Amino acid sequence: MLVNRRPARIEWGDCDAAGIVFYPRYFQLFDASTHYLFEAAGWKKAELRREFDMVGFPLVDARAKFLVPSTYGDDVVIESKIAQFNRSSFVVEHKLFKPAAGGEVLALEGFETRVWAGAHPTDPGKLKSRPIPDVVVKRLTG
Amino acid sequence: MLVNRRPARIEWGDCDAAGIVFYPRYFQLFDASTHYLFEAAGWKKAELRREFDMVGFPLVDARAKFLVPSTYGDDVVIESKIAQFNRSSFVVEHKLFKPAAGGEVLALEGFETRVWAGAHPTDPGKLKSRPIPDVVVKRLTG
Amino acid sequence: MLVNRRPARIEWGDCDAAGIVFYPRYFQLFDASTHYLFEAAGWKKAELRREFDMVGFPLVDARAKFLVPSTYGDDVVIESKIAQFNRSSFVVEHKLFKPAAGGEVLALEGFETRVWAGAHPTDPGKLKSRPIPDVVVKRLTG
Amino acid sequence: MLVNRRPARIEWGDCDAAGIVFYPRYFQLFDASTHYLFEAAGWKKAELRREFDMVGFPLVDARAKFLVPSTYGDDVVIESKIAQFNRSSFVVEHKLFKPAAGGEVLALEGFETRVWAGAHPTDPGKLKSRPIPDVVVKRLTG
Repeated sequence: MLVNRRPARIEWGDCDAAGIVFYPRYFQLFDASTHYLFEAAGWKKAELRREFDMVGFPLVDARAKFLVPSTYGDDVVIESKIAQFNRSSFVVEHKLFKPAAGGEVLALEGFETRVWAGAHPTDPGKLKSRPIPDVVVKRLTG
Repeated sequence: MLVNRRPARIEWGDCDAAGIVFYPRYFQLFDASTHYLFEAAGWKKAELRREFDMVGFPLVDARAKFLVPSTYGDDVVIESKIAQFNRSSFVVEHKLFKPAAGGEVLALEGFETRVWAGAHPTDPGKLKSRPIPDVVVKRLTG
Repeated sequence: MLVNRRPARIEWGDCDAAGIVFYPRYFQLFDASTHYLFEAAGWKKAELRREFDMVGFPLVDARAKFLVPSTYGDDVVIESKIAQFNRSSFVVEHKLFKPAAGGEVLALEGFETRVWAGAHPTDPGKLKSRPIPDVVVKRLTG
Repeated sequence: MLVNRRPARIEWGDCDAAGIVFYPRYFQLFDASTHYLFEAAGWKKAELRREFDMVGFPLVDARAKFLVPSTYGDDVVIESKIAQFNRSSFVVEHKLFKPAAGGEVLALEGFETRVWAGAHPTDPGKLKSRPIPDVVVKRLTG
């Protein structure tokens, strides 16, 4: 199981007038973390698009549970992995940790269900799900 | 049950390199829609903060199901209501509709679970959940 | 001279921990306002792309002068026009007004210098400037 | 002269439907870079606020010149320094470099004019400019 851990800084522009992260920013962090997870497996997004003739992995479901708030200046760590692979969709699990006394605390949990999608064969401008290539599954679960 | 419907335009800057909405933007639309729902009930956020000595309604859970993609230039409608009130938390339900042949199609569904929060009595800078005022519940369910 | 005025709401998510608009959001408002200006002239972005075989109008220069801060809940008006047309570039001027005692106050001024760009003839993935179509100049200055 | 260089990744969510960076995102990078510059001088934003009883350094002017476009996956470097200190305002200069054959190319230049601001003495909720502390000037020009 490939697990990617990456550091992230909560920036001034991520926070709202209550001084804590404006929650849609967490989903931006998740989206980027999914890209970094695939990069850790060997492919930047542009490489995925070139190598597999796919366009992207749009979402069908996204969810976050907010456990502990974060504020600007916080140095957090985001841990991401594929929790499940289906034929043409997959679930990414993200955990965001904050430094705390004696280690780190789980501050946020997220899930993204995404579809492996290519251009639609007959309807240009639309996307169509495709089977996830074996090599992709192998590297991310291996 | 107060249901607020508001129009929104999907803008160029909402879309990613695949030409569809970058999904965290939907949560920004949800967040704004929650604010518009309270405004329809009589209170802008600043008024809530003044009148009830609360700071905000931070999230404990957020979820979206993406049914149909949207692209720049799309004129959508977002329908929001409180699906459930608990003592100091509540669930907002959002539905985003796109125009379609013969009417409109449900393109996105979302849920936000939020806590009614004030300043922490002894730990400044932290928040503490508070009972939702009766008048708030009344206006939003009435 | 076509001048487009549009209302905009400053939203909770537009503001930072000091309670005022996080300044990059103003440029998002400018970008959207440029799109609305062209729409007022008759073309949504997708229509421009279809009708003129252009890809977009990327920026070469952007500037804002911040005169009066705005905060969440503020209902502002953005006034946009083309201040100058060159052969393949143009300057958009934006003014953001806030309601004030006795009328409105100019809170923000911005300028965007943009290039009318199509796909590069020999280097796919790159853009190349093109002469701005007469009909576009006519409608926006007329 | 303290010059801070920091790496940044252009992410999927930074790009628009033309596949290049949506330009307001560059200002987010600038804003964060200003914070990192002060951090390199010894102060995170929260530390500035505590130590100097200031609230922030809001903008009076911001500008960017876009020389070479960037796209998702690009690893860029942002170089920031204070170009000028006045009594209660200062100008930050940012340069964004992209890797290129034989080294790196200047892709973007930006300027932010900011005011050193504290809470207004008589009008709570408003800000008032203050003289920039000598130690701040010293460390950033030293």
